[in-house]
Amino acid sequence: MKWCRFQSGRTVAYGIIEGDTLTEVTGNPFDGYTRTANSTFVSRVKLLVPVIPPTFYAAGVNYRLHVTEMAERRGAKPEFPPAADVGYRANNALIPTDEPIVIPRDATDQVQYEGELVVVIGKRCKRVSEAQALDHVFGYTIGNDVSERTWQRGDRTFWRGKNTDTFKPMGPWIVTDLDPDSLRVTIRLNGKEMFSYAVKDAIFGIRQFISRMSQYLTLHPGDVLWMGTDGATENIKDGDLVEIDIPGIGTLRNPVVRER
Amino acid sequence: MKWCRFQSGRTVAYGIIEGDTLTEVTGNPFDGYTRTANSTFVSRVKLLVPVIPPTFYAAGVNYRLHVTEMAERRGAKPEFPPAADVGYRANNALIPTDEPIVIPRDATDQVQYEGELVVVIGKRCKRVSEAQALDHVFGYTIGNDVSERTWQRGDRTFWRGKNTDTFKPMGPWIVTDLDPDSLRVTIRLNGKEMFSYAVKDAIFGIRQFISRMSQYLTLHPGDVLWMGTDGATENIKDGDLVEIDIPGIGTLRNPVVRER
Repeated sequence: MKWCRFQSGRTVAYGIIEGDTLTEVTGNPFDGYTRTANSTFVSRVKLLVPVIPPTFYAAGVNYRLHVTEMAERRGAKPEFPPAADVGYRANNALIPTDEPIVIPRDATDQVQYEGELVVVIGKRCKRVSEAQALDHVFGYTIGNDVSERTWQRGDRTFWRGKNTDTFKPMGPWIVTDLDPDSLRVTIRLNGKEMFSYAVKDAIFGIRQFISRMSQYLTLHPGDVLWMGTDGATENIKDGDLVEIDIPGIGTLRNPVVRER
Repeated sequence: MKWCRFQSGRTVAYGIIEGDTLTEVTGNPFDGYTRTANSTFVSRVKLLVPVIPPTFYAAGVNYRLHVTEMAERRGAKPEFPPAADVGYRANNALIPTDEPIVIPRDATDQVQYEGELVVVIGKRCKRVSEAQALDHVFGYTIGNDVSERTWQRGDRTFWRGKNTDTFKPMGPWIVTDLDPDSLRVTIRLNGKEMFSYAVKDAIFGIRQFISRMSQYLTLHPGDVLWMGTDGATENIKDGDLVEIDIPGIGTLRNPVVRER
């Protein structure tokens, strides 16, 4: 199934997408829902961020080539994470597909995309094994972990380097019943393919993260886990268009503007 | 005014506390509310975490004596933060007053309290000055930033060191119309006063944090900002009772249990 959140006039609701058609539901996919008689073309509504997570988790550095290429640029030795220690991002920064990434006036030119798979939790869980982990996943969507590299390196935390308003595009929708091991992420900048990688090449996989996190944390329906990106990442600037494509899910597409 | 969230039977609602009496409201204090005819004694309901924040901010190291004493214990040089770079905590870890802090089986004995003031945002704000900052505050409550020090130091992030389930007691309620500069925080362990400090001795104050954060982030009603603690902190263990007291607000009181 393909689930979205959308706005149409004054209505904000969850919807089910079948082909080009969107059917509004009451309730939500996590706690229970009912299809309404309201249908329309997907193209006629504004898609919203597909879920507002109770907690917003991010794997951070989780692909080898990303670690080595980014270290090389800084003239540093690559350091691989020793364990699946999850990090956090913040809801203020979320924007849906098609909305602009806004680079603040005082940011450097080192604002970069990071295209990644997003895991959406479906069931409350605590202390699950790796074998049970995927049973607690609702579905998958796409994220762009936009980062201002000088703030990311220079500040004591990732607050503005990663969580400036509009720095977390997520969408366009959530797809259920996928095999995450079969997915590939492709990043395009102004139509040009910049990098492509297999989700399963992660240093720590989805099962490992969910199982390890759940030894200490309760995961809740709607929580999201961003899985990290692979490869070197490049600067984005005013007028650019970034697309993150995961066949089987869709395309997360955001224009870039710089504040004047 | 004194605001709480509470559960009574199957009702979960916001309420207004006057003396010993709690009056249930419909709606919430951020978007609008109406008093109902339902009143009861505060002692007859279960108090809940007074707000579930859209984003959960924490100042982290923000008091000089805490920095110097904790550095001394590690044999390290104290390092003061150069700027009000805010951090994050996670909603999964929130518990209300009177609920137990549960120390996981595999935690060391270095699980410690950190008693602090919590600022609750009342109005959406972006790019506010320090002079305007407090106009966007709804009120104040109390937090205990429980920390497992070996995980805090050894993991790549604070995920389990700070955000293990039950490690973020917050409450008992929110008090509006306070002068935060006049507040003192006192931490008691098993009835014994461990430390007491003035909120206004922070390295970076509430106005500085809100103003700086809002240059990049939109703050939303219900967001919380934990201001950090002062002084050395001590271990808590099975059977202990931790109380954080801020006269003018109240007392956040949590027993401690260790999983067997």
